[in-house]
Amino acid sequence: MFAARDRTWKRCRGVTSGISVVYCPHTTAAITINENADPDVVHDMLLWLDRAVPKDQAGFRHGEGNSDSHIKASLVGSSATVLVHGGDLVLWRWQGVYFCEFDGPRHRTVHVKWVRDT
Amino acid sequence: MFAARDRTWKRCRGVTSGISVVYCPHTTAAITINENADPDVVHDMLLWLDRAVPKDQAGFRHGEGNSDSHIKASLVGSSATVLVHGGDLVLWRWQGVYFCEFDGPRHRTVHVKWVRDT
Amino acid sequence: MFAARDRTWKRCRGVTSGISVVYCPHTTAAITINENADPDVVHDMLLWLDRAVPKDQAGFRHGEGNSDSHIKASLVGSSATVLVHGGDLVLWRWQGVYFCEFDGPRHRTVHVKWVRDT
Repeated sequence: MFAARDRTWKRCRGVTSGISVVYCPHTTAAITINENADPDVVHDMLLWLDRAVPKDQAGFRHGEGNSDSHIKASLVGSSATVLVHGGDLVLWRWQGVYFCEFDGPRHRTVHVKWVRDT
Repeated sequence: MFAARDRTWKRCRGVTSGISVVYCPHTTAAITINENADPDVVHDMLLWLDRAVPKDQAGFRHGEGNSDSHIKASLVGSSATVLVHGGDLVLWRWQGVYFCEFDGPRHRTVHVKWVRDT
Repeated sequence: MFAARDRTWKRCRGVTSGISVVYCPHTTAAITINENADPDVVHDMLLWLDRAVPKDQAGFRHGEGNSDSHIKASLVGSSATVLVHGGDLVLWRWQGVYFCEFDGPRHRTVHVKWVRDT
């Protein structure tokens, strides 16, 4: 899991009030918002996910062997919507937007759209 | 889980750039984006969900006996936001939007809104 | 988990058609849409979450001891998008929007943005 640190992204493309949608176009990765202060939070989250959704399970059929990654992707979700207010993302002190790689390392892309509310 | 195949939906109602929100107004079903190539991915996802959230559990109180469906619905989520760019949904080769029925078969409805970003 | 009952919120701020995004700026709480009729559904959901994501787990490193709350937050999600149609939120009979407190009691804030689709 990697936190978004691109300041360009955080400039909100001229949207003063509205929403920003951070979108993952992959099916074995996800986007989430969580604590961006202590990296141990990410460690614990991935530890739990790996235990809760083991890679090999009786009955799994998908030939690529990465069903666990697909399941994690749907549990965490393919996008995060962040509010924009006063020209800034509404991300409080501890919040960061994470790209969650569940089947990497791979070359990945993230898309963002800003929509104003007026 | 059924993938959305309605081409009318994918025409984006004249929105060239923005977002499309696919929304489930039910509390025992959900919307997710995942692989739309190998149906075994859906099989494995449902297998995991059924094992992780068994129908009958000690302590469950809900009289209808479908608490597992409600839990799955909140884990997967009631909507999916898909970006729209160049007049098309940003759905890569393997991505599909799924309606996830966790308490069916039932008659269900899905709503979609398109919002432009300019 | 508390259902949103603020009628002001439901007046949609003049948006007749579009979306409403309910957003949680905290990393140990979440927003979800689920049944708002029988409170036993909430009970069963929290029971499952507590069992699936126990507070203390071998290998957890986060010093604050609330990794379970962070994990639940990412599983359930930091926001819910509700469609707006005909000037009303598209919330069917059984649906309610819930603020999910996973590490309380604490003082919390929820933000909402309405975006019109035309």
